[in-house]
Amino acid sequence: MSEHLHLAHTIHKAHTHLGWDRTIEPVQVAKSGDRLLFECRDAAGGHFDKDSTTADIARMDPDAANPVTGPVYVEGAEPGDALKIRIEEFIPSGFGWTAILPGFGLLADQFQEPALKLWSYEPSGKIPAVFSDMAEVPLRPFVGTIGVAPAAPECHSVIPPRRVGGNMDIRDLTAGAVLYLPVEVPGALLSIGDTHAAQGDGEVCGTAIESAMDMVVCLEVIKNAAPRTPRFVTDGSSSRHLDGKGYIVTTGIGDDLMQASRDSVSAMIDLLSHMTGMPAEDAYMLSSVCGDLRISEIVDAPNWVVSFYFPRLVLG
Amino acid sequence: MSEHLHLAHTIHKAHTHLGWDRTIEPVQVAKSGDRLLFECRDAAGGHFDKDSTTADIARMDPDAANPVTGPVYVEGAEPGDALKIRIEEFIPSGFGWTAILPGFGLLADQFQEPALKLWSYEPSGKIPAVFSDMAEVPLRPFVGTIGVAPAAPECHSVIPPRRVGGNMDIRDLTAGAVLYLPVEVPGALLSIGDTHAAQGDGEVCGTAIESAMDMVVCLEVIKNAAPRTPRFVTDGSSSRHLDGKGYIVTTGIGDDLMQASRDSVSAMIDLLSHMTGMPAEDAYMLSSVCGDLRISEIVDAPNWVVSFYFPRLVLG
Repeated sequence: MSEHLHLAHTIHKAHTHLGWDRTIEPVQVAKSGDRLLFECRDAAGGHFDKDSTTADIARMDPDAANPVTGPVYVEGAEPGDALKIRIEEFIPSGFGWTAILPGFGLLADQFQEPALKLWSYEPSGKIPAVFSDMAEVPLRPFVGTIGVAPAAPECHSVIPPRRVGGNMDIRDLTAGAVLYLPVEVPGALLSIGDTHAAQGDGEVCGTAIESAMDMVVCLEVIKNAAPRTPRFVTDGSSSRHLDGKGYIVTTGIGDDLMQASRDSVSAMIDLLSHMTGMPAEDAYMLSSVCGDLRISEIVDAPNWVVSFYFPRLVLG
Repeated sequence: MSEHLHLAHTIHKAHTHLGWDRTIEPVQVAKSGDRLLFECRDAAGGHFDKDSTTADIARMDPDAANPVTGPVYVEGAEPGDALKIRIEEFIPSGFGWTAILPGFGLLADQFQEPALKLWSYEPSGKIPAVFSDMAEVPLRPFVGTIGVAPAAPECHSVIPPRRVGGNMDIRDLTAGAVLYLPVEVPGALLSIGDTHAAQGDGEVCGTAIESAMDMVVCLEVIKNAAPRTPRFVTDGSSSRHLDGKGYIVTTGIGDDLMQASRDSVSAMIDLLSHMTGMPAEDAYMLSSVCGDLRISEIVDAPNWVVSFYFPRLVLG
């Protein structure tokens, strides 16, 4: 961690919870302006390690998925305010995993068998991580799940994102980004987890390079400035680490954005398998950690174009 | 045009057609390997000029929209082949227009009144085009409509894209890209039109910087290599002209990708209007020519995240 940072608090990974619930007792009280370090577990809560095999996927507890560290009560945050979160730094662990989880992912119908890929990467994040002898993936650590408690009572699943954030899996919530979340309960009740070493737009196979990390954020309450939905600002390019050799792009065209998305990704998997000989499962997981799902046009009724962009430099 | 290029044929803009129809007589026969120049009309077929006003929108003939130049019969192209199209160069006209057309565009319900923005830009494309005293848009000319004739008889509307291409409005079909289209009829019957000086992913207001241009392509028939849907390869970054200062990003979160797309763009329009004081109509048109619609996650059921990225350098 950068030495110049003064931390007000460290939120330890012993303090995780499952689900969003305004009645969960805060583990820390923070002030607007405080800098905090969150120890974040990976989405499987440490279930996998370097000796794991595909058989370990069946032993995951689905009710224990996506633990988040927190919640932190931020003094002065009231419903209608914005919680401004400056994402300052990630301290990655160097170990990660990507999986095909049966029943989960954009092409769950096509990929019904589990698969597991383990990653060992240089924790600086500056060296691409080796996927296989034919692919290396540049890293860009970010936070998958970051949110505050919803006003609605009861415990809400941590899996779907919602107005107050949560499991948004936005690959540009990386160091340097500033996120604004709408506060719905007194103190906001911020929790963070599910850090990723790399992911493309869409997270198409359902998982990224899932990886436990510490993360430093600086909090600020902006009175009466709640956005309708989360918004953020980035401080530079989000793709220069990937785009130097351009992209291979497949399309899906039709009147349903979901089906067009499936078609574009399915076409990419076929193309990558054909080009390189890699198994379809590998092409799917590799696409998830570095390929981007974009809506090329959404106005030429009745057909929309969804394009899947795969960065050529990943193949060397 | 670059002097080193040897052109086999020029396809003049007098030879345009409306709709895709395998019975349209070819205006030229080309060989695999030929380099051709297409004179492309803009999507309104030259209806607008530098003296046009918003009132001219009502005088557009909707049945005359999106004329394409061609078709070109490519010798040796048969159903099941791929037509490989190397996009080599654009020679822009320097005049363009962007409009809100009632009933058209992602937020047609919200923007029911017509609006017109005229652009005068440096034809080299190297200087950003002035939108207003608070926004300038870097240019990147590309082709909006490029396709071959469908096998199915009858005349098919030119507005929606389809398996054989057409009005795909993919902003990365720019100089240096190589596009592969599936051939469905003997000779392929290639037509091109609807060139744009700039556009973001989504083309959210329904129009780009619509601009007549000449365009140079090199054609090649690849036997028995028809892709299921169009695919292409780019030769470098698609966003470095825009991303130097990062992005402002708004999100839409929910179980319907179309509604999430609308929500993300609507939030951006509100934000830009609030930040700069520009009218909502301007924010909508500006977003269409430079903002990108991306699917951040499509797997955390039941809610997906669509993000709209607006490049900060456009605002200076």
